[in-house]
Amino acid sequence: MADIRPLILISNDDGIEAKGLRFLIECVNDIGEVIAVAPSGPRSGQSSAITVDAPLRIKQHPDYDGAGMYSVTGTPVDCIKLAMHAIVPRRPDIVLSGINHGSNSGNSVIYSGTMGAAMEACMLGIPAVGFSLLHHSLDADFTECRPIVESITRNVLEDGLPKQVCLNVNIPALCVPKGIKIVRASRGYWTEEYADYIDPHGKPYYWLTGRFKDEDPDNPDTDNYWLEREYATVVPVRPDQTAVDHIDGLRFEL
Amino acid sequence: MADIRPLILISNDDGIEAKGLRFLIECVNDIGEVIAVAPSGPRSGQSSAITVDAPLRIKQHPDYDGAGMYSVTGTPVDCIKLAMHAIVPRRPDIVLSGINHGSNSGNSVIYSGTMGAAMEACMLGIPAVGFSLLHHSLDADFTECRPIVESITRNVLEDGLPKQVCLNVNIPALCVPKGIKIVRASRGYWTEEYADYIDPHGKPYYWLTGRFKDEDPDNPDTDNYWLEREYATVVPVRPDQTAVDHIDGLRFEL
Repeated sequence: MADIRPLILISNDDGIEAKGLRFLIECVNDIGEVIAVAPSGPRSGQSSAITVDAPLRIKQHPDYDGAGMYSVTGTPVDCIKLAMHAIVPRRPDIVLSGINHGSNSGNSVIYSGTMGAAMEACMLGIPAVGFSLLHHSLDADFTECRPIVESITRNVLEDGLPKQVCLNVNIPALCVPKGIKIVRASRGYWTEEYADYIDPHGKPYYWLTGRFKDEDPDNPDTDNYWLEREYATVVPVRPDQTAVDHIDGLRFEL
Repeated sequence: MADIRPLILISNDDGIEAKGLRFLIECVNDIGEVIAVAPSGPRSGQSSAITVDAPLRIKQHPDYDGAGMYSVTGTPVDCIKLAMHAIVPRRPDIVLSGINHGSNSGNSVIYSGTMGAAMEACMLGIPAVGFSLLHHSLDADFTECRPIVESITRNVLEDGLPKQVCLNVNIPALCVPKGIKIVRASRGYWTEEYADYIDPHGKPYYWLTGRFKDEDPDNPDTDNYWLEREYATVVPVRPDQTAVDHIDGLRFEL
């Protein structure tokens, strides 16, 4: 039997041109065969959105560093679904998403397209990891991400992950991370969420912005606590949001 | 002190014109003061997506059955965020979403814009319930939903919900529901997900479709089991997806 290298499917939410996607390919292309299927442009904040009311197109791009490159005119989840339908030659051994330009820590991960792609793969039974660097810049320096990406990817390929659980990895920027902490997502909420504007015709419009207010910033069980202390964090994430611990406590009658 | 009626904020993902939204208003407008803030058009499958790369507009519509009516040019989550920023006169006592035209049962609830709105409210600490009728038609008959919507809304207003937990309610169509079951989401995945087409210029395109394959269809702990048996189902849902039970079992080293 031929020695087949693991197939690594990569996506993201910053789009096919993003530096973080290309860096992720460079990190893992000696671990396996890499195919990248990413949105045709930026899709930040797309969560697990799917495109139901419009058709999707696939475009093949020139290979990058040995990896097949494809863009899809949809969301990150569309990329995973359509890759499985029409692009990958066999079932991927792992799906990686990112490296996202910017944080996906705390419970605002719910908005993340990067993690949307990872959770879609997870629901299909494929081990999946989303990576994010806490730096929004288009030309962020991803160098210090490499050992973390390599280590986690090799570990997950070897040992797998618990059934219906994927990983949300955040990496602090502008430092050499001191280690990796396995934690839960910080809980909080956003404040001052909109900038208010008036258009030239006197009509208001609103643009999303805001600050994340951590409810429990001094809690060492949480990702934001360790990211501030220059550690990378891994949060195990379950796409199934059922609060099973509250099923027995609720009662509704007709 | 004046006797203030509860403030009920309503949203959905089918848009401001949807029959299900208007029926939901009719169900609860004698329970409290109702304000509806819904997308300007259909936003099915938008999950917890947010609009980050474009401004948002609010449009006021004529009142419906005593309720204030507003549309937002964004996603269901945008509707909740912008309602809180610029529309509601005080903090809502409850957020209701729906009634969705079509099922949000099983783990594909992750794609649901209806539940995206409910989860956003939940993250803000407001009790929230999403309602869905298992009938996709634009002119679906929502009549049998009324006692379920009324009962659950009154119950939640009175007793509240567990912290950071909201409810996903599904209602079977074309029958008088036999009761309400509190259960977990069925787990499964979609198969045959795309219809393949060729455009007039010979180029392929793809349109999302497919069938949900339930992994465990005979399990009475799940919503699909009871929906098939003409019961309404309530799944408690937690926006925080951390798989806390797997934090101790994972280990990654640099």
